[in-house]
Amino acid sequence: MSKVLIFGHKNPDTDTICSAIVYDYLKRLQGMDTEAVRLGELNDETKYALKYFGASVPKLIDSLESGQEVILVDHNEFQQSANGIENSVIKEVIDHHRIANFETAGPLYYRAEPLGCTATILKKIFDEQGVQINKQIAGLMLSAIISDSLLFKSPTCTLRDKLAAEDLAKIADVNLEEYGLAMLKAGASTKDKSVKELIDVDVKEFILNEKKIVVAQINTVDAKEVTDRIDELETTITNEINSKELSAFVFVITNILTSDSEVLVLGEDKDKVASAFNKKLENNLMTLEGVVSRKKQVVPQITEEFNK
Amino acid sequence: MSKVLIFGHKNPDTDTICSAIVYDYLKRLQGMDTEAVRLGELNDETKYALKYFGASVPKLIDSLESGQEVILVDHNEFQQSANGIENSVIKEVIDHHRIANFETAGPLYYRAEPLGCTATILKKIFDEQGVQINKQIAGLMLSAIISDSLLFKSPTCTLRDKLAAEDLAKIADVNLEEYGLAMLKAGASTKDKSVKELIDVDVKEFILNEKKIVVAQINTVDAKEVTDRIDELETTITNEINSKELSAFVFVITNILTSDSEVLVLGEDKDKVASAFNKKLENNLMTLEGVVSRKKQVVPQITEEFNK
Repeated sequence: MSKVLIFGHKNPDTDTICSAIVYDYLKRLQGMDTEAVRLGELNDETKYALKYFGASVPKLIDSLESGQEVILVDHNEFQQSANGIENSVIKEVIDHHRIANFETAGPLYYRAEPLGCTATILKKIFDEQGVQINKQIAGLMLSAIISDSLLFKSPTCTLRDKLAAEDLAKIADVNLEEYGLAMLKAGASTKDKSVKELIDVDVKEFILNEKKIVVAQINTVDAKEVTDRIDELETTITNEINSKELSAFVFVITNILTSDSEVLVLGEDKDKVASAFNKKLENNLMTLEGVVSRKKQVVPQITEEFNK
Repeated sequence: MSKVLIFGHKNPDTDTICSAIVYDYLKRLQGMDTEAVRLGELNDETKYALKYFGASVPKLIDSLESGQEVILVDHNEFQQSANGIENSVIKEVIDHHRIANFETAGPLYYRAEPLGCTATILKKIFDEQGVQINKQIAGLMLSAIISDSLLFKSPTCTLRDKLAAEDLAKIADVNLEEYGLAMLKAGASTKDKSVKELIDVDVKEFILNEKKIVVAQINTVDAKEVTDRIDELETTITNEINSKELSAFVFVITNILTSDSEVLVLGEDKDKVASAFNKKLENNLMTLEGVVSRKKQVVPQITEEFNK
């Protein structure tokens, strides 16, 4: 039997990559034959974290062979997972998202908790099992928590995420605020990216009442740097909508310093998306004050609107 | 806000009822305002267990109000859950089955492990949290494990289930074998039941490749007692198939002493069901030697056949 593959979602972010590496470390410690892999290119933030803590980049895979045994971290929805996931054998899931579009033929180990980050659940598992956390593993978990919580500013961040991060910063021997801001800034540069790259940084597809909606997000320290390129963005996003038959494409441009988001919405259901937030679009844009979390402040609102 | 309701699946069995009572006890100890409820009548085995350990019968509910907060134990598939589950808010799930036909709008606490019984997971949770288990709670968890594992004979039974049961028998102050056999026999009497009652004792509906299949199971100490009533069974099951538009109805008659099952299959896809086990039906019947577990030895085989 081949190795059990451990991976997070497509368009990997820091939590997805770091959690795969960390859980692979734990599983191999316990004698399981596993390998952390990834489903896409690393973003700049994740590259910064892996380099800082000297971790290797997991191997890129394209699709799964039928019957491949897998462990999913940081996601469960099949459309966010590896191609061929329907015919794999899912042994475990460690996740902190809603459950949807997920199905197995047999029983499995599934651990989800409504926390801000998958790595926080992993930290709990290390502690429960009394497994010591080394400096590198601590640094990777810490990076994941900082990333998902935007340095604790996101409403998805719980007290447990913050306490875990404080513990981990000590083990990783870094100053939490300094390292955190440096890592977030490393991922927030938009100038050197093409428009296609911008919308691909952190993109997830949802199926809501049989409609396909994409919600992409980019973190920035200057939202105007992105919105200045709106004509080019609209052209590229319209191509995405046509080729993937989307009902709407929602592009959330989050300023990590002010914790507000500019949101560009296109597609035939764009006004329905805006009304989920009691907003009207102006030039396809709306401002959502205090909104930084796709999971908690964007997707549930759109889900509710589309299920009406 | 009303109490958070805790319940297991429709057509409740001993694990579903006992796990709801036990988890409600733990949640109330921790200060949560919960109530254990049930979705159907108790079977004779469960009545025996509750009476033996002096536990109250949970309140029967018919359906959920929209927005009701719930915790599911021992199931997750919506068609096995309370009417109105789609519009409830699922806070937690503790389960040991495959995941399918399940979806939430937001993140939740989900704990599934591939163990023989939900109560074994609950025993782990008590131990992890350092909560003392009293005699009644131990007796209920023990009864659930004996029921789901058919006194450790089922292939779903793991070493962890057995060790948990041995621990719990000590706390509950009963002889494991004696109490276990008495409880199973209390639930295995078929003579005083109508044919409709027999097929309703432990019935679950599955949606496989868009086809509705029902798999019902009855435990007995004398399978002939059931198969002697085959004409009446066929009439009643055919009515079920017509009224519920089923592709097949699979009735598993399990002898708990010999660990074999006689299986009656009706419906337009009956031969497809038989071929899942490389069998041909004779008078709509087939014998499955060594088969006692619907979850491990019946449903996956049928699932695979219908997904071909």
